[in-house]
Amino acid sequence: MRRAFAAALLAPLLLGGAAAYPSPDDVLARAPANAWAALDPASTLYMDLPAGRVVILLAPGFAPKTVANIKQLVAARYFDNSSIVRSQDNYVVQWSQEDKAKKATNAKLKGTAEFERPIWPPNLVHLPDHDTYAPITGFDGDFAAGSDGKSEWLLHCYGSVGAGRDNAPDSGSGVELYAVTGQAPRQLDRNITLVGRVVQGMDLLSSLPRGGSAQGAYMGFYQSPSQYTQIKSIRLASELPPAQRLKLEYLKPGTPSFTAYVEARRNRRNDWFVHPAGAIDACNIPLSVRGAR
Amino acid sequence: MRRAFAAALLAPLLLGGAAAYPSPDDVLARAPANAWAALDPASTLYMDLPAGRVVILLAPGFAPKTVANIKQLVAARYFDNSSIVRSQDNYVVQWSQEDKAKKATNAKLKGTAEFERPIWPPNLVHLPDHDTYAPITGFDGDFAAGSDGKSEWLLHCYGSVGAGRDNAPDSGSGVELYAVTGQAPRQLDRNITLVGRVVQGMDLLSSLPRGGSAQGAYMGFYQSPSQYTQIKSIRLASELPPAQRLKLEYLKPGTPSFTAYVEARRNRRNDWFVHPAGAIDACNIPLSVRGAR
Repeated sequence: MRRAFAAALLAPLLLGGAAAYPSPDDVLARAPANAWAALDPASTLYMDLPAGRVVILLAPGFAPKTVANIKQLVAARYFDNSSIVRSQDNYVVQWSQEDKAKKATNAKLKGTAEFERPIWPPNLVHLPDHDTYAPITGFDGDFAAGSDGKSEWLLHCYGSVGAGRDNAPDSGSGVELYAVTGQAPRQLDRNITLVGRVVQGMDLLSSLPRGGSAQGAYMGFYQSPSQYTQIKSIRLASELPPAQRLKLEYLKPGTPSFTAYVEARRNRRNDWFVHPAGAIDACNIPLSVRGAR
Repeated sequence: MRRAFAAALLAPLLLGGAAAYPSPDDVLARAPANAWAALDPASTLYMDLPAGRVVILLAPGFAPKTVANIKQLVAARYFDNSSIVRSQDNYVVQWSQEDKAKKATNAKLKGTAEFERPIWPPNLVHLPDHDTYAPITGFDGDFAAGSDGKSEWLLHCYGSVGAGRDNAPDSGSGVELYAVTGQAPRQLDRNITLVGRVVQGMDLLSSLPRGGSAQGAYMGFYQSPSQYTQIKSIRLASELPPAQRLKLEYLKPGTPSFTAYVEARRNRRNDWFVHPAGAIDACNIPLSVRGAR
């Protein structure tokens, strides 16, 4: 039944006598209500900057302890009036690390290396194409993930959010977070705990001026606090009265609409493209979020 | 001989009794003078913005006709006092298209579809890992390229520069250029003419505010000319007196140092990494450029 539905969407449609394939946007516009799922307000962060709001969806299914730490920090207002302290071109923005006093008060938070997890129960919707870095890639919930058949892990894609760490693998508690702003740095997969992804307002992070470094290697840390971007507050959506929460939904992997969406991105067939790619990697499938209808 | 040199660089080095592998930066620092090549001033563009200089290396070997058009436009000062008119998050910035008057005066420039070329003579230094999009990937000169064994084409990586076109494949003359500022949009490979890549000053383009669109789909075009970024001028380096040219060099693909550099990026083995990736895709190998020594 599912299969037939997907096949119907993938087949060319006759429009004005000419064969046409649905574009990714067409697929999203036609996806039925039951192909969409609401973002869990208990796992959705609102990070308010002077220029606007960044919305981050947390992944407690992949990083339960680190996400619990982050929620505890949010509840303690740890991030309020903190700063974005780093922007390295084609890599990451990073926040809150440099506030040593705040960090010290939260030193009791234990870090945990949540780099991968067992795949049971299996929930990964596989992509059909070969990935350079992982034996299997696909989507689990609303997150791009990789697997070797035994473990599963989140991928470092544009917009992925992780917990910075020092050399000790269990040193990332969540007091210091980063978001990927460049080409997917997939070499970080399974080396650091990813805790979620930005689902709205990514442009507010990616367009920040890049920081420089007077000492040695360029890592994008701002040289002066005057260059920092203020974080006014971070709140969990579930802390706010329901009327003040954003009503956001994502297209569910495993639905016929999602299958059709991936195929529409694998092979673009509008009037502009002359050579459909015939393949796609997970980080080139943006999991857009829409307002609830 | 080459092989032995590369093997020596790849082997662990004994430092203070502990085994250590050279980092990518170590490899660059140790690369001998003959592993570097000067950028050709006749194929190097200086795009001067109010905030600083963007340096673009052109690829006449891949797009001879489109590059010739661009040089003609530069000589005619077509780009001087023009504007960056588009910045779409996780995609591209684009310049000069919207100036209809200027465009009209250069309508005589013929566009050419230079999407791929025959591989003969073969010059592609292959990468060892499987790419999702192309049967073979590697580097040709200082450019990331793909191949199917018959043709060769430039890849859309972060910083790649191309000639925008309309639906007609031969409609991209060079009056309108774009630079990739997000995740490699590899679906564009072989669909549009790439003409070079940004080798310095990429952060000046990538950190521009994103444009919005009141009408329909978001494509990042600025809504008002007041949001444009001015392009003061574009000059070919060879137009300037030698003393005013930047002395820039790139690491030559095919040298032992380049092989070692790729391997150092494929498998990071410093104290931080717990899981070397064991693979790399072409767009994750930044071809950094240094000042001549």
